[in-house]
Amino acid sequence: MAGVSQPGPAAPGVAVIAVGSELLALGRADTNSPHIAAAMQRHGLAVRFTTVVGDDLDDLTDAVRHALARADLVVCTGGLGPTDDDRTRDVAAAVLGLPMHEAADVLAGIRERFGRRGLTMPEINRRQAMVPAGAIVVPNERGTAPGLWIPAGHRAMLLLPGPPREMVPMLEHALATHVAPQWGGGLIRQRALVVAGRSESWVDERAQPVYGPWRDEPLPIATTILASLGTVELHLSCRGTDDAALSRRLDAAVAALDAVLGDDVVNHDGRSLERTVGDLLAARGWRVALAESCTGGLVTTRLTDVAGSSTWVDRAVVSYSNAAKVEALGVPAALIAAHGAVSEPVAAAMAEGVRARAGVDVAVAITGIAGPGGGTAEKPVGLVCFAVTGARGTEVRTSRLTGDRAVVRSLAATTALDLLRRYVRASAPA
Amino acid sequence: MAGVSQPGPAAPGVAVIAVGSELLALGRADTNSPHIAAAMQRHGLAVRFTTVVGDDLDDLTDAVRHALARADLVVCTGGLGPTDDDRTRDVAAAVLGLPMHEAADVLAGIRERFGRRGLTMPEINRRQAMVPAGAIVVPNERGTAPGLWIPAGHRAMLLLPGPPREMVPMLEHALATHVAPQWGGGLIRQRALVVAGRSESWVDERAQPVYGPWRDEPLPIATTILASLGTVELHLSCRGTDDAALSRRLDAAVAALDAVLGDDVVNHDGRSLERTVGDLLAARGWRVALAESCTGGLVTTRLTDVAGSSTWVDRAVVSYSNAAKVEALGVPAALIAAHGAVSEPVAAAMAEGVRARAGVDVAVAITGIAGPGGGTAEKPVGLVCFAVTGARGTEVRTSRLTGDRAVVRSLAATTALDLLRRYVRASAPA
Repeated sequence: MAGVSQPGPAAPGVAVIAVGSELLALGRADTNSPHIAAAMQRHGLAVRFTTVVGDDLDDLTDAVRHALARADLVVCTGGLGPTDDDRTRDVAAAVLGLPMHEAADVLAGIRERFGRRGLTMPEINRRQAMVPAGAIVVPNERGTAPGLWIPAGHRAMLLLPGPPREMVPMLEHALATHVAPQWGGGLIRQRALVVAGRSESWVDERAQPVYGPWRDEPLPIATTILASLGTVELHLSCRGTDDAALSRRLDAAVAALDAVLGDDVVNHDGRSLERTVGDLLAARGWRVALAESCTGGLVTTRLTDVAGSSTWVDRAVVSYSNAAKVEALGVPAALIAAHGAVSEPVAAAMAEGVRARAGVDVAVAITGIAGPGGGTAEKPVGLVCFAVTGARGTEVRTSRLTGDRAVVRSLAATTALDLLRRYVRASAPA
Repeated sequence: MAGVSQPGPAAPGVAVIAVGSELLALGRADTNSPHIAAAMQRHGLAVRFTTVVGDDLDDLTDAVRHALARADLVVCTGGLGPTDDDRTRDVAAAVLGLPMHEAADVLAGIRERFGRRGLTMPEINRRQAMVPAGAIVVPNERGTAPGLWIPAGHRAMLLLPGPPREMVPMLEHALATHVAPQWGGGLIRQRALVVAGRSESWVDERAQPVYGPWRDEPLPIATTILASLGTVELHLSCRGTDDAALSRRLDAAVAALDAVLGDDVVNHDGRSLERTVGDLLAARGWRVALAESCTGGLVTTRLTDVAGSSTWVDRAVVSYSNAAKVEALGVPAALIAAHGAVSEPVAAAMAEGVRARAGVDVAVAITGIAGPGGGTAEKPVGLVCFAVTGARGTEVRTSRLTGDRAVVRSLAATTALDLLRRYVRASAPA
């Protein structure tokens, strides 16, 4: 596996337990454990193993006991709800030999959360206020289940709820508040280069000769490569005691990677591609419009995921039918007849049409064949045409994307966002 | 998680171990274990826990020893390659106390595989021909690493390679050849009720009195409740030997749940809400158009995720700006001035506008305040207005949704799809 450099053996060991029968019965992947493992890695802690276990009391007790015997820190996710099947609190307390009590402040917080929505707390939720002796609450801004940090001598347990949107910010809070002071051993400084439009192997081929030696130098930098559909992230992490020295070290590292990766680097701070595009638009006072066919609104959905996007997104037309391309975007029917709906001239006309109607600075269009049906020998599934248009004129591009319907749509959306990024970036900010 | 009842204690227990340091360091989900868990469930075997562990000899040995102490069948994936880091074979043999020997037929198979590609087998691959005494090879048509079935008294270990495209067919082979004869006790039949527009607790309050007794009756039914944003799934699973009796049992169970859940049940076969909407539209020969504001294209993205959706999706307008609502949808500017963009009259005008322009049977519109900004005392973040329109007239609804921007958008999209489902369903199919 490319680009892995593990923390040394001196790093404190972590075990992760994901609790929930649905993870064992329904073929769903546990995404919490890898997220936690990556976060621990960034903090210089090594995850030794992760376990998924159901709600069975005996299995869960065994999993907690076994993890505590092998790790300094045991992180559990799930099983903090209000029902009889939610047993993580009880099992942790029992294995650690700690008595449970009802925490008045936790109970008040849960009541207040229901109250804010005009509801009375059901009596069943009272169970969520039971905490083991010595435990510190990890606040949950997005749900009723409080997290718990439970110190136990030189070890500790961290209990977090299962839903990722609740778990993720609580993990960050616990890492900063409890984990780093106990095991952090100094400062951790990080950077994340986001690269678009290139494969993991393309990135690693260029980056590995640069980052390879870093782990053996003074102030070693740990490097992790994370590939998702259409983007590759290079995470750099450096640990030490001198903040300025860490920053200088990472600045030099980022500059060295920039030198080999060039324009493909989207940013140096891990922002999403869509947020980066939004920031570039905002810096120029530009507004964007979109015309989507095969992506079915996915590009607009991703752009409008960004809070504040109403400042720079004007509108989008999802022109799934040819009639919509003609009526709602002004694409000449003859152009579609001559070149087909999936063609660079139609993509250009879609982008120019939506830009003219919306009166915006820049517009992007996507038309393609997402599959599984609709492909021909000449225009196979995965063929996608793109256009970006603005005051500098119209640029078109055709890609042949590989994968199932969802993959083609996702790759096409990322490609469109990246073309938009390059087009906007080529104009100076206002 | 409420409402989980596991297969009974009589089902043989399985533990799964996924081996590979990259699974712990790079934030990647282990997809093999949930695949194996679902396959075991179909064969009536219960997976008690799954573990991801790195290549460290001590950690791997501990994981195998612990799993063998708790399970009848231990399945390992990964660590069967030719390098020093590939230790699964050695560790399994050591923990089971079995001597290793070089299997001449396995070695010949590996040599032949290289030979077919015109290559000479590297000496390092010889390690892959080392097998524990008594092990039976599980053939690998797609790679060099042979799988191994290792009987050990009343227990067994199954070693499979890590790459899913090699692992999946080998698992099926092993299930049919080794697992079913030893543990296969009968058939498993399943159903999944999808419920929209209700909370998990609302569903469980009504469903629990119905399904609660099932686990103690003859032909016990195991029930799992899975909640996601805006939908709740009730999974039923029943094990026996008589296919017709299992079907009758599950039909009666589904009917009993239908009786308490009513119209909120979207389907009985686990289809997504968007696919259900598409099937209802297709059955009537209807086409739909959409006008989205705060959801930013999410409803259209979800509908067009469904393969074949081009038959029943005509177009969508994402009218993020007020100008777009007026120009692209024909909403009177005076209506926006009088009621505000987030209002039932504007939602109705958006739906009616896009329906008239697209000339389709039915249209849905969403306008709301997703946050974090844009809320007022009168119209707070989370306020969302919906409209559905068609030959039967226009229906409007306002919801106050709770959560951050992503949650409000997701809940609003699900609500819109569910309103569309109810509107379409109320008309008879063609």
